[in-house]
Amino acid sequence: MPESPIRKLVPFAEKAKKLGKEVIHLNIGQPDIETPEVALNAVKNLNLKVLEYSHSAGNESYRKGLAEYYSKISAGITHEEVMVTTGGSEALSFAFTACLNPGDEVIIPEPFYANYNGFAETTGVKVVPINSKIENGFALPPIADFEAKISAKTKAILICNPGNPTGYLYSKEELIQLRDLVKKHDLYLFADEVYREFCYDGKKHESILSLEGIEENVIVVDSVSKRYSMCGVRIGALVSRNKEVMSTILKLAQARLSPPLLGQIASEAALKTPQSYFDQVSKEYVERRDILVDGLNAIDGVFCPKPGGAFYAVAQLPVEDTEDFCQWMLESFEHNGKTVMMAPVSGFYSTPGEGKKEVRLAYVLEKEKLKQALVCIEAGIKAYQNK
Amino acid sequence: MPESPIRKLVPFAEKAKKLGKEVIHLNIGQPDIETPEVALNAVKNLNLKVLEYSHSAGNESYRKGLAEYYSKISAGITHEEVMVTTGGSEALSFAFTACLNPGDEVIIPEPFYANYNGFAETTGVKVVPINSKIENGFALPPIADFEAKISAKTKAILICNPGNPTGYLYSKEELIQLRDLVKKHDLYLFADEVYREFCYDGKKHESILSLEGIEENVIVVDSVSKRYSMCGVRIGALVSRNKEVMSTILKLAQARLSPPLLGQIASEAALKTPQSYFDQVSKEYVERRDILVDGLNAIDGVFCPKPGGAFYAVAQLPVEDTEDFCQWMLESFEHNGKTVMMAPVSGFYSTPGEGKKEVRLAYVLEKEKLKQALVCIEAGIKAYQNK
Repeated sequence: MPESPIRKLVPFAEKAKKLGKEVIHLNIGQPDIETPEVALNAVKNLNLKVLEYSHSAGNESYRKGLAEYYSKISAGITHEEVMVTTGGSEALSFAFTACLNPGDEVIIPEPFYANYNGFAETTGVKVVPINSKIENGFALPPIADFEAKISAKTKAILICNPGNPTGYLYSKEELIQLRDLVKKHDLYLFADEVYREFCYDGKKHESILSLEGIEENVIVVDSVSKRYSMCGVRIGALVSRNKEVMSTILKLAQARLSPPLLGQIASEAALKTPQSYFDQVSKEYVERRDILVDGLNAIDGVFCPKPGGAFYAVAQLPVEDTEDFCQWMLESFEHNGKTVMMAPVSGFYSTPGEGKKEVRLAYVLEKEKLKQALVCIEAGIKAYQNK
Repeated sequence: MPESPIRKLVPFAEKAKKLGKEVIHLNIGQPDIETPEVALNAVKNLNLKVLEYSHSAGNESYRKGLAEYYSKISAGITHEEVMVTTGGSEALSFAFTACLNPGDEVIIPEPFYANYNGFAETTGVKVVPINSKIENGFALPPIADFEAKISAKTKAILICNPGNPTGYLYSKEELIQLRDLVKKHDLYLFADEVYREFCYDGKKHESILSLEGIEENVIVVDSVSKRYSMCGVRIGALVSRNKEVMSTILKLAQARLSPPLLGQIASEAALKTPQSYFDQVSKEYVERRDILVDGLNAIDGVFCPKPGGAFYAVAQLPVEDTEDFCQWMLESFEHNGKTVMMAPVSGFYSTPGEGKKEVRLAYVLEKEKLKQALVCIEAGIKAYQNK
């Protein structure tokens, strides 16, 4: 596995900190939002004497709770159509292993979450990227682009909705286009919907679970990590109405025995998180997004489409190579004792050379820090251009 | 993946319970022993507001605690030589992926923990079994048997010590024989040592970490599941002094982001479990083992070597096929309203046809239940023979 452009930066960030610089981290998706109290309390009120294995598919009571949650998205989901996994990562790895064979191809609109490459590599599956464009906010590429890449080896399409790194939220129309394509070629449609709860400006999230006519083709990858700001519990889920796929996945789940028990206790309790929590979180993220994105677009030569979901934005900077720029920001620049760490987006593209001018910024920090980051980025760009 | 003989029995056990039979489960390794209070209390006293990702390699404070623990086994282990994993399962899967390529061969004395097959299958590695014999208590097979199976494709030997399903505890002499073999052919030596703490009759566990001259070849797979009776937390560890292997494994660990946070909190606290806990647990297991094994050997036609460690015993029964017998015990037999579920050992052999007369029994239940189980097994064998 090649080292990712973000990981390459880590030693530079560490060195910068050792030298006394404050590094503002816009590079990672670890929210500072508090975990819902109802989840924390469930852990604190633990009343078990033995921390036993749970069912390989996850505790039944939790799966039933999840089935109720998913049934609000698409009627009639049962707990047997839900598998509790060790994070969204394992859900995706299960989906790849269960549905694809070595040599098969999966089409993914790029830029995409770089870890997808790791799951593909482990299972011997080839990723076929389809370029989406910053100019139109990373909307779904034309279906003709997909058609051009579909071969006998193509077995699946994978989307992330809303997207990491783009924050783009697919419209119902775009999903219906994908539905028709998937149906026509009898492909699997995988959707990573871990940011489902984070949709802004009154837009509604459309899950692929609700697409009619491809019920057997659809596999949803989910996670509590971002939804309840508890990335550390490592609890995800896989949802599918395809009985054969679910039966294969149960065998994979049995091989690793069970998903984490304590995380399941927190996650089951989190299902009772009041709507007020989400409203407050959503309001906070919209404010942060607006500060960050508006601030970026106010900088000379920077272009950043306003994302409709998640908590990432991709910006194009007036530099030739953001890998170099991001390293320079850590290594050679500071403004009032501060610098900013951003993720070069080249690592999120599968096509070599794409995204060289782009960075991903995660707005997971408080507004004051984002404002400081903007000042720093503006000063950094100027200094970098004049060096 | 073929269905295991144990899993095939599950529906029969469920049906037996529905019909009102009490099923005594000697088939699974889920101990009834209580988790140490110090671990449960650490969870109850959780004082985090956000359950964040931990470091991909595990929390540094926990890794330092583990380094101290392993240094008592083999001097000088540092926290950089320890990777916290999602259960022992993930540690083994990382070891296979990092050290072996598709087509490589790994030699494993059989019978062995059936899930090893799953990890081999996922990584495209071929398992080459070497038969160990119930007649001598499943001791290490002669080195000549290993030599006969070593080819250019052989890359590793995997042992489980003490063994699941056999309970056999390798002697220092046996490990030195393996050490010499591994050195001669420059192989990896993997040891699953998750039952390390369960050694009886004054015998001492020898870890492969302490074998001199093959420091770079050794990879230990570990877990807190059995040690502290907390299988549900899904925390394991991988220990190796091989820097290159550890660097590859860190990349695999990064791809799945982090091991479970709450389980790490419990596990770090569990390092402070008082010796009195282990003494009590060990005393309990020895009493259970003696009741079970002596009781089995008192049954006409049954042979069960007394294991030196873990909490499993393999017994040879006077029946032709334990898969059939175990199913019959669930489906067609009861004694005072009870029956016993055991694991046919054929599923733990890689060589077809081996172990057909053997069952694995886990002595993870209280003594009274074990006595009831023995009565039941004796009556069952008689009835089965006379049917």
